[in-house]
Amino acid sequence: MLEELKEQVYEANMMLVEYNLVTFTWGNVSGIDRKSGLMVIKPSGVEYSKLKPSDLPVLDLEGNQVEGDLKPSSDTPTHLELYRRFPTIGGVTHTHSQWATCFAQAGRAIRTYGTTHGDYFDGDIPCTRKMTPEEIAGQYELETGHVIVETMKGIDPDRMHAVLVHSHAPFTWGASAKGSVEAAVVLEYIAMMAYHTEQLSGGAESTERMQEELLRRHFDRKHGPNAYYGQKK
Amino acid sequence: MLEELKEQVYEANMMLVEYNLVTFTWGNVSGIDRKSGLMVIKPSGVEYSKLKPSDLPVLDLEGNQVEGDLKPSSDTPTHLELYRRFPTIGGVTHTHSQWATCFAQAGRAIRTYGTTHGDYFDGDIPCTRKMTPEEIAGQYELETGHVIVETMKGIDPDRMHAVLVHSHAPFTWGASAKGSVEAAVVLEYIAMMAYHTEQLSGGAESTERMQEELLRRHFDRKHGPNAYYGQKK
Amino acid sequence: MLEELKEQVYEANMMLVEYNLVTFTWGNVSGIDRKSGLMVIKPSGVEYSKLKPSDLPVLDLEGNQVEGDLKPSSDTPTHLELYRRFPTIGGVTHTHSQWATCFAQAGRAIRTYGTTHGDYFDGDIPCTRKMTPEEIAGQYELETGHVIVETMKGIDPDRMHAVLVHSHAPFTWGASAKGSVEAAVVLEYIAMMAYHTEQLSGGAESTERMQEELLRRHFDRKHGPNAYYGQKK
Amino acid sequence: MLEELKEQVYEANMMLVEYNLVTFTWGNVSGIDRKSGLMVIKPSGVEYSKLKPSDLPVLDLEGNQVEGDLKPSSDTPTHLELYRRFPTIGGVTHTHSQWATCFAQAGRAIRTYGTTHGDYFDGDIPCTRKMTPEEIAGQYELETGHVIVETMKGIDPDRMHAVLVHSHAPFTWGASAKGSVEAAVVLEYIAMMAYHTEQLSGGAESTERMQEELLRRHFDRKHGPNAYYGQKK
Repeated sequence: MLEELKEQVYEANMMLVEYNLVTFTWGNVSGIDRKSGLMVIKPSGVEYSKLKPSDLPVLDLEGNQVEGDLKPSSDTPTHLELYRRFPTIGGVTHTHSQWATCFAQAGRAIRTYGTTHGDYFDGDIPCTRKMTPEEIAGQYELETGHVIVETMKGIDPDRMHAVLVHSHAPFTWGASAKGSVEAAVVLEYIAMMAYHTEQLSGGAESTERMQEELLRRHFDRKHGPNAYYGQKK
Repeated sequence: MLEELKEQVYEANMMLVEYNLVTFTWGNVSGIDRKSGLMVIKPSGVEYSKLKPSDLPVLDLEGNQVEGDLKPSSDTPTHLELYRRFPTIGGVTHTHSQWATCFAQAGRAIRTYGTTHGDYFDGDIPCTRKMTPEEIAGQYELETGHVIVETMKGIDPDRMHAVLVHSHAPFTWGASAKGSVEAAVVLEYIAMMAYHTEQLSGGAESTERMQEELLRRHFDRKHGPNAYYGQKK
Repeated sequence: MLEELKEQVYEANMMLVEYNLVTFTWGNVSGIDRKSGLMVIKPSGVEYSKLKPSDLPVLDLEGNQVEGDLKPSSDTPTHLELYRRFPTIGGVTHTHSQWATCFAQAGRAIRTYGTTHGDYFDGDIPCTRKMTPEEIAGQYELETGHVIVETMKGIDPDRMHAVLVHSHAPFTWGASAKGSVEAAVVLEYIAMMAYHTEQLSGGAESTERMQEELLRRHFDRKHGPNAYYGQKK
Repeated sequence: MLEELKEQVYEANMMLVEYNLVTFTWGNVSGIDRKSGLMVIKPSGVEYSKLKPSDLPVLDLEGNQVEGDLKPSSDTPTHLELYRRFPTIGGVTHTHSQWATCFAQAGRAIRTYGTTHGDYFDGDIPCTRKMTPEEIAGQYELETGHVIVETMKGIDPDRMHAVLVHSHAPFTWGASAKGSVEAAVVLEYIAMMAYHTEQLSGGAESTERMQEELLRRHFDRKHGPNAYYGQKK
């Protein structure tokens, strides 16, 4: 079932390798078929070099595995919570990519310092609060989803495709599995630049955000109603 | 038309991939035929792996598309303004290369700290002022060209092949499309080194520029009337 | 003799090249057959591109070479001491990988700043004291083993697979030769992130460690009695 | 003539590409035949991908070109001065490798912070004084050789294979062309680590050098009369 989606999710997972976002088996990408409400996700702990599209387990939104012999990623409950709460998204990516993870470890948002950021993300990339001991001891991966959703309160998930989980790493999403990986690639790129922009400016306190007008212009020329970047489709 | 120029501009665009200056479709290179006054440029949003020389649109200096089915880069008005105002240049490159973009985001010029810089650029790489809300809301890409030209006032574009656009990224140029990419490669290299030179020296305030005589010597041994670097042509 | 172990140790040594942890001949991996008490290790100063499994010397735990024409790694006495004192380990790796070595040169432990760390290491990666002039002038490589063992006092080597040797570089270990290389790969990754996490937080003094509960959860979900990461074996 | 030396010098030049020490044509390696007193060096400004062993010009120690149609590297007078003044060396390398060049731009020696340094270099890597306006305006490349020799006063060139030229970049040397490139590779590696070791320690002022005994031990186990690293020859 869902062979085409499996192929897409497989290819999106392999993009993590191509873009140097994973070491060993540390990342995972999923995609959802909104009609059937079924999600395809990377199996847990399987090496990328051995992964095949047919290996990918299929689950419903309550987490029941409806196909596949392999266990899904241990982060599956986080993915499912994002699909349940952000009904417009079609793919979710989790990595421990180096620069974005540094910001997560520092518990800091990634601020809007330039147009590369504005071309993809409409504002600071938020970082969650720390999770409570109860959340950590309980259904930890589900609670990770909850704290991401809490952090996104009042933010449109179609304009902000990433959250940093405190002391952990980023989750990103998009219209498709591939789109969620693209968000992870850009996130890593802008995290590297935000770090050095602050160092060049004498630290975070003395670093100015970009002008709101410029952020608006760049986000909208790619994603607004009058977007004029790229070819017509 | 202009098949040879298209081939050159195509190859220059592919150099961005080879030298790791682009992610996805974030860069663009153009070249101009000064006899006919026609410019060839990368089409907007097309992946490098799928790009072919015949895809490249041709425009006149007023921006009228005279050949090609694909939309030109959204940065086309910036390229055109540079060709109109710097009549000796033959190619223009725009990237969001990481280190140079960090300086642009910090709104800082890249200072002359060593001979690698002096071998290519005759002075600090300037950074533009911030653009005004009116410029951003108006013909933004054309205004980007204006602010670059304004920043280059009193500077010879044949001796300074790069400008950082504030909160955005670099534009570089050269005698040819390939030459403009070479400037982008060197710019990225010296930006990386300028950053760390300052950190090694306790910050920008306490970092000395190289001696003017040494800058002169290195620039002139490659580009002066008595240049003696390389083979005779 | 021990052809299968030689093959495993050979492949583990080649992983150092694959994961960019060595330059020239600077690293070495060994593995032990606990039944016979014999260790297989990289020969000293042999280039990786010329290494063959049959080149690998075999030694007993007292350091007597029982097979092979080539001299074993000059770090052999350190490896042997670790095998003698940590009876559960099956492989040892030594590299001068860049980020981990920076911490060793600074004489600093790598603190627990995030879940990537907690997924592999149950606490700060310790750094040894400086060795004494007598230790350095004496059986230096054996003394290096002693100071590692001293540093591990009270720490379970099955939960902490790495030590930084002061002013020198890391040693890592694991259940197998391959496992010890994986520890070296992760160590390098988290060292890079620890460095930047501290810089993002205004220095080491003002950087908070991750919550103990979160470290516990991540280490245990991979390595605890109720581990649920990966596929059943 | 000197076909074997040309082959060796060619291969040493290509190592610069392999080890990522050059961009475009920015580096050069030479080797000398001490019997005939003839030097082989990279031609000026020739791309590495097009270089052939037979392209390499041959010069005597006074700088007379005795073979070859191509102009030698513009840095030839620096190489020749090093061969004249350091009679035991057999090869010289010049690069603008990034981390070492940062120290040169900051006008700072690279201090002995760890055993990776001590395995190759017997003390701090010195940095020259600034050159005078007269030296820069005169026979600049020869004067560069003079200031390197001046900086090496009292230092054994067989125990210290590198000097940073202020505001410029490193020169390294060795027993052969290949040996001089190996010194350049190690120099770049330890420069990267010295930079971050200082940052980890709160800046250069508060960073301790490694113990003299440890430096002694590591240098001597590889290069001393009782060296025991590597295989017997």
